Amino acid sequence: MRMVDLISKKREGLSLTRDEIQYMIKGYTDGTIPDYQMSAWAMAVFFQGLDANETSQLTMEMARSGDQVDLSGIKGIKVDKHSTGGVGDKTSLIVVPLVASVGVPVAKMSGRGLGHTGGTVDKLESIEGFKIELTKEQFFNNVNDFKMALVGQSGNLTPADKKLYGLRDVTGTVNSMPLIASSIMSKKIASGADAIVLDVKVGAGAFMKSLEDAKELAKTMVSIGNHLNRKTIAVITDMNQPLGFEIGNANEVKEAIEVLKGKGEERLTKVCLTLASYMAVAGQVYPDFNTAYKQFEEVLKSGQAVETFAKFVEAQGGDSELVTQPEKLPQSKYHINVIAEQAGYIQDINAESIGYAAMYLGAGRKTKEDQIDYAVGITLKKKVADEVSIGEVIAVIHSNNKEVQDSLDLIQQSVKISAAKVEELPIIYEVIE
Amino acid sequence: MRMVDLISKKREGLSLTRDEIQYMIKGYTDGTIPDYQMSAWAMAVFFQGLDANETSQLTMEMARSGDQVDLSGIKGIKVDKHSTGGVGDKTSLIVVPLVASVGVPVAKMSGRGLGHTGGTVDKLESIEGFKIELTKEQFFNNVNDFKMALVGQSGNLTPADKKLYGLRDVTGTVNSMPLIASSIMSKKIASGADAIVLDVKVGAGAFMKSLEDAKELAKTMVSIGNHLNRKTIAVITDMNQPLGFEIGNANEVKEAIEVLKGKGEERLTKVCLTLASYMAVAGQVYPDFNTAYKQFEEVLKSGQAVETFAKFVEAQGGDSELVTQPEKLPQSKYHINVIAEQAGYIQDINAESIGYAAMYLGAGRKTKEDQIDYAVGITLKKKVADEVSIGEVIAVIHSNNKEVQDSLDLIQQSVKISAAKVEELPIIYEVIE
Repeated sequence: MRMVDLISKKREGLSLTRDEIQYMIKGYTDGTIPDYQMSAWAMAVFFQGLDANETSQLTMEMARSGDQVDLSGIKGIKVDKHSTGGVGDKTSLIVVPLVASVGVPVAKMSGRGLGHTGGTVDKLESIEGFKIELTKEQFFNNVNDFKMALVGQSGNLTPADKKLYGLRDVTGTVNSMPLIASSIMSKKIASGADAIVLDVKVGAGAFMKSLEDAKELAKTMVSIGNHLNRKTIAVITDMNQPLGFEIGNANEVKEAIEVLKGKGEERLTKVCLTLASYMAVAGQVYPDFNTAYKQFEEVLKSGQAVETFAKFVEAQGGDSELVTQPEKLPQSKYHINVIAEQAGYIQDINAESIGYAAMYLGAGRKTKEDQIDYAVGITLKKKVADEVSIGEVIAVIHSNNKEVQDSLDLIQQSVKISAAKVEELPIIYEVIE
Repeated sequence: MRMVDLISKKREGLSLTRDEIQYMIKGYTDGTIPDYQMSAWAMAVFFQGLDANETSQLTMEMARSGDQVDLSGIKGIKVDKHSTGGVGDKTSLIVVPLVASVGVPVAKMSGRGLGHTGGTVDKLESIEGFKIELTKEQFFNNVNDFKMALVGQSGNLTPADKKLYGLRDVTGTVNSMPLIASSIMSKKIASGADAIVLDVKVGAGAFMKSLEDAKELAKTMVSIGNHLNRKTIAVITDMNQPLGFEIGNANEVKEAIEVLKGKGEERLTKVCLTLASYMAVAGQVYPDFNTAYKQFEEVLKSGQAVETFAKFVEAQGGDSELVTQPEKLPQSKYHINVIAEQAGYIQDINAESIGYAAMYLGAGRKTKEDQIDYAVGITLKKKVADEVSIGEVIAVIHSNNKEVQDSLDLIQQSVKISAAKVEELPIIYEVIE
């Protein structure tokens, strides 16, 4: 087999066989197939696409290219959750304790943030003493004991995907739906879950800007899951405005706790209950979505969910008292109000810009090497469609630096106020399964 | 400027500017733009093409990437000739002395053969003592003295094209018309000619298998020439069967001399007179094609052309007596007849297969490192449409090895005999200027 022939085959719009994809990914991982052939193939894929079988095989081979997590030591149907990334997206911190409370085991590996989006690992690390690295034994014990554990990605997971993603980034081949879908799914498959619930974000603050693209990505990922015998459900959710009120790290943990107490912002709560319900159905704890959703509303009210969260924090070295005393989380020195310069209705809060404003404050990373300041961030006081009067506080900047003019200007520009009434944005667009 | 942006621009079907192409080719030549970006760009070009300006700029930048031959020391309009490569293609050996005889200066650089096609340099080296390397002074003096010199490619000509061609060869990006055209034309531009006549071969033994493709390549090359102010004319000629009767090296020189004496095979003679006529018109020696063609017929009859050839051989160290005594050329030990196994009419002589049969005998190179045996080759005794009786000799194998079964079988398979009468193939399909 020669890589040049596989490139030509794809270029002509033909499908590669399982053996051919295996040959390609093995060769690329071990370095016998060079970058310059892989990038030509990726560009051919940009134009010719991959069929469902090819996409699944590519995903599987990338999952097999490195370590594969064996979760067989954990009892029950292990359900994983993945978000394609957004601003103020603290759903993992809420959904995982929620489903764990009703007996769905979640052995979750999460990532760090980059650019305008945050990462679950960073948020958890804002809790003093919290250990994001566990031994395999601790990891399994915690999941068996109270159904959840959340660690950073460790080991040599999907090296082929890492290498290919890095290459695509510099060769204009990122925007290929089957390549995006297989990249995400390869990590989920390698992480060992039996079922996967995907939160596909759509809108200004998401990677997928249009509903059409989000649907295509969702369908492609669900198809991969089905081909590889992992029950997969994708929920398409709104990311035109940030999710919830808080954007940062410590403040997002605080907001997650509010939701777990049943006192969270409505849209954020709805996303979390929806994702949790599909996870519980996939985990065969409830027979259907509606039953699950009602049960989870009860779980929030009863305090079960926040109790599981407290156990989880304690088990991973953090102080569980922060659940009742959120002031134990890092606090910034300065709190600067952003004021409405006109009266009317909030028409738009550009999620991407708010994400960058938070990054400039130190809540996120511009490059992988940047250090995060856990205490800083942004609290929104308004959501799209809310009424606002002139001089009213629309957001608060939490900073350890007095100079916040850049972030302040960016937030001002991101929030559009209209004189006319504004319709609320949908929060759940579609569910693909 | 970032290469990744230029790749994306091309991927989206937009045209690169002159500055962008310059940045790209300079960077690729000096190594700051890596192969993996260049191959992704080449694949994007495969799908999106290049417009006429981009193709010309690419050609120019590749021509500028290394040495550029300065022919200003030679008087008159310097006309170059290029063939896209075929089997039995000895036209340069004929056309160059023809046009030199009427005063068109040709300072020609030729290449070696690879695979099923031969090279002019190899053919000339079958002449004992012939020197394919001249000093710049000798090269210019010979052209000024008797209007022709023919040397091998030397120096660092079009390194960007060499590098890009090598990359395209292993990344499935060879078959892109603007990339093929710019590769050929960059070498011609760097070689310093004022005008270029292209012999675009079409058919089973050529790189372009269909007339449609040959026309597109011809048009693209003529467009490049016109954009870069080099008068360019392309003649599309037949390569379904080998050109002339002889395939090899010494035997092709012998056949070239026959044509120069006015005693050559009809189709080969016609191709040569046509190319020579367009060169003479481009060189402003004759006002139009028909006048030129008639004059060249006279030049063949008068012995002028073969006289120029003799001068040229002598000037480059060979024995000019071979013009009257062709037995001075290397002779092989064995001459094996290939016999018609049925009666009828020659329907097809697959040029590519005949080329490979000659290569297996030692007349060509499988890899660049192979040594050529100048004495060996194939003499065809029939052309397509000729009548043939059973047991008649259709070809003769010239070999220095008794064992020629493989070549013999290949020739037998290449020659198809039909019971019904067969139409003669066209020899000149079209002229693009």
